Amino acid sequence: MDVEKFIEPSSTYHMLGGDDPYSYAQNSEYQKQLVVSAEELIYKLIDKHLDIEKPSFDPNNIFRIGDFGCSIGPNTFFAVENIIKSVENKYKSNIKNPRIPEYHVFFNDHVDNDFNALFRNIPITRKYFPAGVPGSFHGRLFPNATLHFVHCSTALHWLSRIPKEVTETNSTAFNKGRIHYTGAKKEVKEAYSTQYRKDINSFLSARAQELVPGGLMVLVILGFPGGVLPSESSIGIGFNILGSCLEDMVRMGKITEEEVDSFNLPFYYPSPSELKALIEENGCFNIERIERLSEPMKNEKRNLNIVIKVCVSHLRAVIGGLIEEHFGNEIVEELFQLHMKKLDENPMMFDEKYRKEANYFMFLKQKSHL
Amino acid sequence: MDVEKFIEPSSTYHMLGGDDPYSYAQNSEYQKQLVVSAEELIYKLIDKHLDIEKPSFDPNNIFRIGDFGCSIGPNTFFAVENIIKSVENKYKSNIKNPRIPEYHVFFNDHVDNDFNALFRNIPITRKYFPAGVPGSFHGRLFPNATLHFVHCSTALHWLSRIPKEVTETNSTAFNKGRIHYTGAKKEVKEAYSTQYRKDINSFLSARAQELVPGGLMVLVILGFPGGVLPSESSIGIGFNILGSCLEDMVRMGKITEEEVDSFNLPFYYPSPSELKALIEENGCFNIERIERLSEPMKNEKRNLNIVIKVCVSHLRAVIGGLIEEHFGNEIVEELFQLHMKKLDENPMMFDEKYRKEANYFMFLKQKSHL
Repeated sequence: MDVEKFIEPSSTYHMLGGDDPYSYAQNSEYQKQLVVSAEELIYKLIDKHLDIEKPSFDPNNIFRIGDFGCSIGPNTFFAVENIIKSVENKYKSNIKNPRIPEYHVFFNDHVDNDFNALFRNIPITRKYFPAGVPGSFHGRLFPNATLHFVHCSTALHWLSRIPKEVTETNSTAFNKGRIHYTGAKKEVKEAYSTQYRKDINSFLSARAQELVPGGLMVLVILGFPGGVLPSESSIGIGFNILGSCLEDMVRMGKITEEEVDSFNLPFYYPSPSELKALIEENGCFNIERIERLSEPMKNEKRNLNIVIKVCVSHLRAVIGGLIEEHFGNEIVEELFQLHMKKLDENPMMFDEKYRKEANYFMFLKQKSHL
Repeated sequence: MDVEKFIEPSSTYHMLGGDDPYSYAQNSEYQKQLVVSAEELIYKLIDKHLDIEKPSFDPNNIFRIGDFGCSIGPNTFFAVENIIKSVENKYKSNIKNPRIPEYHVFFNDHVDNDFNALFRNIPITRKYFPAGVPGSFHGRLFPNATLHFVHCSTALHWLSRIPKEVTETNSTAFNKGRIHYTGAKKEVKEAYSTQYRKDINSFLSARAQELVPGGLMVLVILGFPGGVLPSESSIGIGFNILGSCLEDMVRMGKITEEEVDSFNLPFYYPSPSELKALIEENGCFNIERIERLSEPMKNEKRNLNIVIKVCVSHLRAVIGGLIEEHFGNEIVEELFQLHMKKLDENPMMFDEKYRKEANYFMFLKQKSHL
């Protein structure tokens, strides 16, 4: 057996654990609303595409579900419960054999994810046997043909690593003074998209092997509609403001210019057509549905001060760990205070017209000839 | 589906996590030597009893191993590697089809076990896909017929709970002034052994359902040969000395008498014939082998001071959490300092003649009619 495939990529990205005000658990309302809006689609598409007549879906066997990039809950639990409800509905509708399988559910995230918190959070009313799986979803995490259903929501924008050339001072793709490809020169964007292409290909190939023939996969992806410039979206504006806060801290002598130049956020937001092309190029899955999800929290009229607090708090939950790892623990509090202050002074990113990013729902089926 | 079976018993026993000098990882040399002495037996018995001709052991399928009460490593990793080596040997010896399966390995311990530390410790050279399973092994943790091999070493002496009557002041089994059944009146011992009987029965029934037909199970059990009085063994003497330290702390006003009266260690050490009878009474397994393992560290001539330090350090890793939960964090350091001092003054428990406890190796096979 090839030991290589068990070895993880080196990145150590993870959400902030625990239950404090900056934890992911307390700052994931946006993600939760996405899970809810995907629920109905999942229910209908499982009914349509789950091949319960196939031997690998025999209800006497176990039905295994994997959630990739699960963090510490609770959103992963809502998603899993909805999948189980949908699968049960499908099996019960079988007139010849309305028997339902037992469920084994695997919660995956990086080895540095707070699995202790995840395990404490698993609802006691669950109707499944839970297990935790540590490791990068860009590599193999399960034996062949183990899983029947894969779920991965708002996690695939995380790259496995920052492309090397973006931090090399002598490279044409050196991303000086910026922390992301939004607004940067085209070589930076190209380096990011090349990395994304590799990562998506690894993810799809690993999942295709781990799924049983005809296994199903739901992806919820944050991206930009074709033609939209990320730098003119709220995400891009937000990253630029965060970058300017880091530059302020360089001027204050708290961190060095080199530290900022070598820091880049490992996120990539594809367009739906770009992602569709990558899935087709990979060739392991049929795309059964692509749908743009409605914008979470769009119609909520809320006090701008609160919106800013929630936004900064959410960003801190997501990237606080990266900041700490790169710059040290000391600057985290001050950086996010500064970020909040700048957003208060200039809240343009919260204007409706800049909300150009969108969440795309994809329903894939493993090509069963594999 | 019955939700009850997913709900855990209420106990929250676990080893001390992390890597500091008091952690289980740093204080489990004794357990490691047991794993080593069981290795050869496991190798031979897998060769003899693994039914690789049965459909559930088809090498095209996955071979699933569960280690119950795994703590945070490294002993669980040594045990799993040895099982895989033995299983590979068996499959490779099949002339018609010398193909080997892929391995999926499940590490189980209580939800309060430090799974984050466990996951960080998993060797990168592993030849298996790892997963963590939180929950009490006295209940169901896996779907039906999931596992091919179960391992449980020096963990089954943990009771799921302290029998109620042992802490009830008006009960004939009230264990006043003692922290264990060693040396206590017979009603206390009876209450403990009744609880043990229930717990072993739950454990065996759960594992029998989780194993595939003909699945194998290794238990390594700490117990006493028939006729030995636990109070005259080093374990019993050690618990009595620890109990006297708690009484000293009552006299010093650091804790109350009621706190000591209501504290009992949740450990039970059966005789091999008692355990054999319980396994037969349960009826789910054939006993293929019972063997007394050689005493770990018996022939090591070591400085008594070091032996005492190692012993107290080990005890603290195992029961430090229980002490903290019952008496509060403040007394832990002082209690174990006091314990060390008393053992220095009176090291009789380290005399060869009191080393009466023994480790029993049991190799069981699930009765395949289940």
